[in-house]
Amino acid sequence: MNKTDFVSIQEYGLPKFKSELLEYTGKKRNEIISGNSDEAVVIRPENDNVISTSSVQFLEGIHFDLTYTPFHHLGYKLVTAAVCDIYSMNLTPVQIQIDIAAPNKFSVDMLKQFYKGVQKACEDYNIQHTGGDVSPSHHILVASASATGTGDEGEIVRHSGATVDDVICVTGDLGAAMAGLRVLLREKKAWQETGSDHFQPDLDQYEYVVQRQLVPRARFDLLEGFKKGSIRPGAMAGVTRGIVNDLQKIGKRSGTGIKLYSPAVPISYEVRNVADEMQEDVDKYAFYGGEDFEMVFTVREEEVEKLKAEFDDFSVIGKIVDRNNQFMINTGEDRTIKIDLFET
Amino acid sequence: MNKTDFVSIQEYGLPKFKSELLEYTGKKRNEIISGNSDEAVVIRPENDNVISTSSVQFLEGIHFDLTYTPFHHLGYKLVTAAVCDIYSMNLTPVQIQIDIAAPNKFSVDMLKQFYKGVQKACEDYNIQHTGGDVSPSHHILVASASATGTGDEGEIVRHSGATVDDVICVTGDLGAAMAGLRVLLREKKAWQETGSDHFQPDLDQYEYVVQRQLVPRARFDLLEGFKKGSIRPGAMAGVTRGIVNDLQKIGKRSGTGIKLYSPAVPISYEVRNVADEMQEDVDKYAFYGGEDFEMVFTVREEEVEKLKAEFDDFSVIGKIVDRNNQFMINTGEDRTIKIDLFET
Repeated sequence: MNKTDFVSIQEYGLPKFKSELLEYTGKKRNEIISGNSDEAVVIRPENDNVISTSSVQFLEGIHFDLTYTPFHHLGYKLVTAAVCDIYSMNLTPVQIQIDIAAPNKFSVDMLKQFYKGVQKACEDYNIQHTGGDVSPSHHILVASASATGTGDEGEIVRHSGATVDDVICVTGDLGAAMAGLRVLLREKKAWQETGSDHFQPDLDQYEYVVQRQLVPRARFDLLEGFKKGSIRPGAMAGVTRGIVNDLQKIGKRSGTGIKLYSPAVPISYEVRNVADEMQEDVDKYAFYGGEDFEMVFTVREEEVEKLKAEFDDFSVIGKIVDRNNQFMINTGEDRTIKIDLFET
Repeated sequence: MNKTDFVSIQEYGLPKFKSELLEYTGKKRNEIISGNSDEAVVIRPENDNVISTSSVQFLEGIHFDLTYTPFHHLGYKLVTAAVCDIYSMNLTPVQIQIDIAAPNKFSVDMLKQFYKGVQKACEDYNIQHTGGDVSPSHHILVASASATGTGDEGEIVRHSGATVDDVICVTGDLGAAMAGLRVLLREKKAWQETGSDHFQPDLDQYEYVVQRQLVPRARFDLLEGFKKGSIRPGAMAGVTRGIVNDLQKIGKRSGTGIKLYSPAVPISYEVRNVADEMQEDVDKYAFYGGEDFEMVFTVREEEVEKLKAEFDDFSVIGKIVDRNNQFMINTGEDRTIKIDLFET
């Protein structure tokens, strides 16, 4: 970019920038009866629905790295992270508020790219972006989001809802976000070692895993499947900290044990390829890799076929067992790994 | 503090720290049907009430300075800032979620002090603290809060609700938070110049203004007064960016002009003393100083006496006038300052 094209928020004017954010409202929702214009957002839940709120905070250098993250992907991912928590309660997100603090090293154009990503995500998730604050920052970009969802109280799914003999299922495939991160960090290192401004990372063959890291999608299609099939899962969680961690929460809070069939855990060939290249165990990516934003859930065995008729991008990977069994991972080679349920 | 007493979150263990935050839940509210234990908080509004959400983000070095801000005051102030936005809609806050990102330079004890401040504020405001995330940070402490409130839709007060001939009122007195900031920054500078570890700032005579800066209180007592007197204000705003800015929002959104009687604006003698010492115009503190967290509101003239019977810590400071008048400040010395309503 030409140096003279760079306009900081300070030069541009914060009030002007803030007023232009009104363009990025995502989808207008009937439930939102007061959005940007007052000090707080007002939501009128329909049909005696309950309300759910979730929040996430992203710090540059901790939760994202702008050397390889495009601003619009960052905006998209922030929204995904916030709505995933609402979906995992089996509720429907309706709005999101976003506050950012931005240092002057970022231009108005860059920050608008961020909001374009927010806008795109809000359109995809059918939610309204109701605004938020923009403030200065000395060093790093910080973005916080708080999302609100609604739904029928009877439909809420909690971590504590799993029962013995439920089957454990997971959408899509696992470990891709971690594989993508590995590739991006390797390319970043290579770029730093060349010290060249014209370094071109070759990411073509890694597109799938890189996209899964940079611009993950929340699995609302699963919830649509539940609705169409009149299925209510027992327990559900977003796969945000690795499926072992996420299942531990379910086991602990449901007072049950977990049995995982390791060979059934879905892993794409792209993820296997990256693990091979990195000379790492692919199970580490799939079991402990965070940020996949897939959904892990439990249902009664007889509901698996019913769900398949409506939504089939999921795999059965285990079973809810008695608490005494703790957390067992059956590797399919006559070996069982036992994890203490109370270890986190 | 003895060096060996310092325990970082990393040494202490993040899961242990997070689980101990369950102690700081503030007041349990019936509306909160799922708090800390799931991925999102669930709220069941009573009596067909609407829901309101607000968010704030505090960055070290931008919104607060830990060289003079005790951690428990910081926690208190964060909650105040979030609930003030809900009160200013004439709604009742019920819960708050707080995410922090903390670098290892802060000990577990320091961060627990922060949550003790959160706890105290939640008790004072009668709201539940429903938890949130704790993540690492490289440089600075970042704290985000999102609060939720409920209330009858018919009771909502908006920035757009002022009408011509409403009187403009403000609670308490103005400019104290800015005066406190001036004193604290002066003492910080003096401390930096001595370079001594044993510098003792003399803040006794500045206690009022320093407290107003460090640990401001949201004025829910005003809302109780409205309720008792069956009074509904026209427009209302928290005094967070200086009363001129906050009234500008009301004028713009209500499509009206603003007339302010400068001599009627309440300023404490402590604030006048600080302005004198600093050789600054006290009106600058009172009119443009932020973070007072007082409430500015408009009511019909005949309601002023009615309100006084229930709540009397407020002053009448002006009048809502026709839009053509713009924003006039009458200085009481036959002089009128005109501010463009569309300037921000």
